Amino acid sequence: MRHLIDITDLSVEELDAVMDRADDIIAHPEQYAHACEGKKIAALFFEPSTRTRLSFEAAMSELGGKVLSVTGASSSSQAKGESVSDTIIMASCYVDIIAMRHPKEGAAFVAAGKAGVPFINAGDGGHLHPTQTLADLLTIRRECGRLTGLTVGMCGDLKYGRTVHSLTHAMQRYPGTRFVFISPEELKIPAYVTEELEEKGIPYEVTTSLSDALPSLDILYMTRVQRERFDDPEVYERLKDSYILNAAMLENAKDSLRILHPLPRVNEISTDVDGDIRACYFKEALYGKYMRMALILFLLEQAGENGDHLKRLERIRTESVKPEGIRGEVCENPRCISGTEQELPPLYRPTGKTDAEGRTICRCIYCETEKAIRLNV
Amino acid sequence: MRHLIDITDLSVEELDAVMDRADDIIAHPEQYAHACEGKKIAALFFEPSTRTRLSFEAAMSELGGKVLSVTGASSSSQAKGESVSDTIIMASCYVDIIAMRHPKEGAAFVAAGKAGVPFINAGDGGHLHPTQTLADLLTIRRECGRLTGLTVGMCGDLKYGRTVHSLTHAMQRYPGTRFVFISPEELKIPAYVTEELEEKGIPYEVTTSLSDALPSLDILYMTRVQRERFDDPEVYERLKDSYILNAAMLENAKDSLRILHPLPRVNEISTDVDGDIRACYFKEALYGKYMRMALILFLLEQAGENGDHLKRLERIRTESVKPEGIRGEVCENPRCISGTEQELPPLYRPTGKTDAEGRTICRCIYCETEKAIRLNV
Amino acid sequence: MRHLIDITDLSVEELDAVMDRADDIIAHPEQYAHACEGKKIAALFFEPSTRTRLSFEAAMSELGGKVLSVTGASSSSQAKGESVSDTIIMASCYVDIIAMRHPKEGAAFVAAGKAGVPFINAGDGGHLHPTQTLADLLTIRRECGRLTGLTVGMCGDLKYGRTVHSLTHAMQRYPGTRFVFISPEELKIPAYVTEELEEKGIPYEVTTSLSDALPSLDILYMTRVQRERFDDPEVYERLKDSYILNAAMLENAKDSLRILHPLPRVNEISTDVDGDIRACYFKEALYGKYMRMALILFLLEQAGENGDHLKRLERIRTESVKPEGIRGEVCENPRCISGTEQELPPLYRPTGKTDAEGRTICRCIYCETEKAIRLNV
Repeated sequence: MRHLIDITDLSVEELDAVMDRADDIIAHPEQYAHACEGKKIAALFFEPSTRTRLSFEAAMSELGGKVLSVTGASSSSQAKGESVSDTIIMASCYVDIIAMRHPKEGAAFVAAGKAGVPFINAGDGGHLHPTQTLADLLTIRRECGRLTGLTVGMCGDLKYGRTVHSLTHAMQRYPGTRFVFISPEELKIPAYVTEELEEKGIPYEVTTSLSDALPSLDILYMTRVQRERFDDPEVYERLKDSYILNAAMLENAKDSLRILHPLPRVNEISTDVDGDIRACYFKEALYGKYMRMALILFLLEQAGENGDHLKRLERIRTESVKPEGIRGEVCENPRCISGTEQELPPLYRPTGKTDAEGRTICRCIYCETEKAIRLNV
Repeated sequence: MRHLIDITDLSVEELDAVMDRADDIIAHPEQYAHACEGKKIAALFFEPSTRTRLSFEAAMSELGGKVLSVTGASSSSQAKGESVSDTIIMASCYVDIIAMRHPKEGAAFVAAGKAGVPFINAGDGGHLHPTQTLADLLTIRRECGRLTGLTVGMCGDLKYGRTVHSLTHAMQRYPGTRFVFISPEELKIPAYVTEELEEKGIPYEVTTSLSDALPSLDILYMTRVQRERFDDPEVYERLKDSYILNAAMLENAKDSLRILHPLPRVNEISTDVDGDIRACYFKEALYGKYMRMALILFLLEQAGENGDHLKRLERIRTESVKPEGIRGEVCENPRCISGTEQELPPLYRPTGKTDAEGRTICRCIYCETEKAIRLNV
Repeated sequence: MRHLIDITDLSVEELDAVMDRADDIIAHPEQYAHACEGKKIAALFFEPSTRTRLSFEAAMSELGGKVLSVTGASSSSQAKGESVSDTIIMASCYVDIIAMRHPKEGAAFVAAGKAGVPFINAGDGGHLHPTQTLADLLTIRRECGRLTGLTVGMCGDLKYGRTVHSLTHAMQRYPGTRFVFISPEELKIPAYVTEELEEKGIPYEVTTSLSDALPSLDILYMTRVQRERFDDPEVYERLKDSYILNAAMLENAKDSLRILHPLPRVNEISTDVDGDIRACYFKEALYGKYMRMALILFLLEQAGENGDHLKRLERIRTESVKPEGIRGEVCENPRCISGTEQELPPLYRPTGKTDAEGRTICRCIYCETEKAIRLNV
């Protein structure tokens, strides 16, 4: 069963095919208006969202399908302590495909392990948000005519910004990409991202100055400094207005620059930019809907003849795979799903690196937070 | 693009046509069951409501269309600080028509300025609620057989009651209307309402006695004294039971009296009135659904061939009109949208009147709260 | 108008017919995919739930119908103090059938008295939850091939567990049933349940030992000890882990044992039981969807040609039946609907028993809580 937890769950060729399908849907929407007739999606949103949920609902509706929605944690079984696993098994009885947003990191990994239908990660805590990246990629491809040879600037919260990490991960697969990371020192792009770029020989720059970087950019990806990703409100207050883009600054930018933002924006892009033809953040929201339509079709096709609901439950019962990894202590990330999901063992995957004390640097298999573990020889 | 922010956005002739359509839908519902097939409405309810939202959802469903719903502020991007403008631009990418209820006054005005699709004000704070007035008007027309020559009594919270102001505004357009305003002194009908009636030569009475007024009424419009419109809970407690209608009081009323209430009622109409044939408040809820169906059809027809979503976004980008008015200080109404919506300048529209000190009396262009501004000669 | 407030509102023959229909839907889903085209259900969930609501929504969707949903109390008119009666009358204007879950006990009784369309109790406080019992019955019938001659074990919270009381009530109607009630002393099955079994000559056992009971059981019905049913959190903490089922314990159980749980489970069934072929709790959730489909069809057929919405309102107005009973003081149950619903008189129904002081033992007509009332000779 194919799922989408991380953007790299789709190969470059598959991504191209999904983008081609989205282009076709934009050009001939009437041909897709009944593609999912009789099918249902569960939109399980256990964390606040309007855009992503409405985008999935609009997407399924425009394919002729139906939507079952759960919003918020307090009005659901989550409040009663139900595990993500059980929620997903139950939802597999009711719908043909699931999209879930959850506040705990790694929740998507757990859900995909139990789903009897295709599962789409609509965001797990601050960890991953692959469908936003799909929207970003289609926007770049349509607006620039290509995905290769672009200078991509990312600005704002590069430390916690999951869409930044995901887009970097996706764009580095295209030849000729050059990154420019623009942020205050405290919100710098994490080392594990830049180390991966160095290993692959992909050029990048790190700077604190947006105006210095602007003239060379083909893409400017602005991000919001998100209050909810900070444990300390004072640090948030100090950093939130770090980089604001306005119309005056754009005088030095290329005519072919395209400005993206995963939205919602609060003040990091001034409204005087909205009328500029280079502003693409609303188009991004629209393209996101078409990419979700194409993704839903792709995953349902991959699932093929999924059998009736009884067969799906039987498959979940007999084919459930135990997650593998090195046993360790409880994950230190307070937002990791392993802290709340019952009977989920703390497991880790070695990265191949060691620290100064000779301990193996591993990653939690759920949320990917690093942990140094002393492995027996 | 035609929107409905205030009841007077529709001319008397247009209102008649919408009511005629509603009558036809009631008579031949099967002819409308697929009228909106393939179309979607966004029901954005950022303030508590059950009836209005269900009414819109039922309306669109009975036209064969689909509904995307957002309920509550805490489970949406509003909690993340997203502006009403951006929310509406984004929703324009997903649906063909939008209905929005928002706690801030003037939010509907701002939304309509940005919507790429027809926009319906489902209530902005304590300011306007035009679709309730549509329900009221159809009820009166069907129950009394006409909208002219009626004595209309309004009872309860006439000071803050937005449905009272709106119905007064609508009914004064019909010849032969006479108003009777029944309330405690503290909740008296505001001067700006009665002044407008005087200017137009429309007869009205102000009284504190419901039983005195009852015998002469053709329509009795009861309203709930709403806790949420009061800043001081003590004043609310004192006034909330001011006027309660029960079966005994109806002995002196006309057989042709019709009793309306926008609902929900708490105790201002006793349940012993419900069985009386003159009680029309539940029929009002039903007629409200049919009026919303007729309104949706009207606005979609007015929008005509709205183009695909990309064209709509382009139109929003190029045709966005800057609101006009006199620059002033921040609006004093703590519930005005200009206090929270980013980059919204405080603007005022002069009323043509001046106060004792020679300052021009103006109204906030968003929420219409009065403000005296000293204009330069 | 037929409603489902309690499982016994359906006769044994009607239950059989509904289960037969559910079997047919499972076998031939495509024959039912448009059975409710053009019809709508209101899913009014004023108390947290995910499964039951999604189950109803999936059920109606798979019948080709539409769903209007209300979730949570704070985002609805309930927060404005609207009565259940008025909410139900209003909803009757918008849909063809209503399912409601409400935190107050007796709310379903009140709602069914006012509904102009078929009404389904989706749970009223800790009182009744008949559609869960429908799911349980179909599961037992399909998994055991029969409903007669079974030894049924119920384990966990037998004192407050509404699904336990309801299933006991339903299963006692089938010849040859024997009950085994397994719980800690504080959560023992209430006397009124066992007294009824004794009156009908139905064998039962009460024990505190799950392992002792296990070998003789055909059905094991596990329940969660629910935090929300306890007023005292300390008692809850002490009792919540009383009985936990794991794989090791199943070695002494029959191969033909079937394990049910109304879900959500927290920890009372260990996940190492999930892979056992005897574990049926997820199938229960699936069967619940099919039973709800069959129930919706049954109730709509019973309602017959229900007339248009105006006729329904008229019927509510003229046919409203005043509830009957003995006048008494306010019900002592803090969760009884009579405490909050306006103008609802406290009424009681005598049970035919008297207490030591000669007072008649009665039950509140809404929530069925016992009360001793001194009746005049």
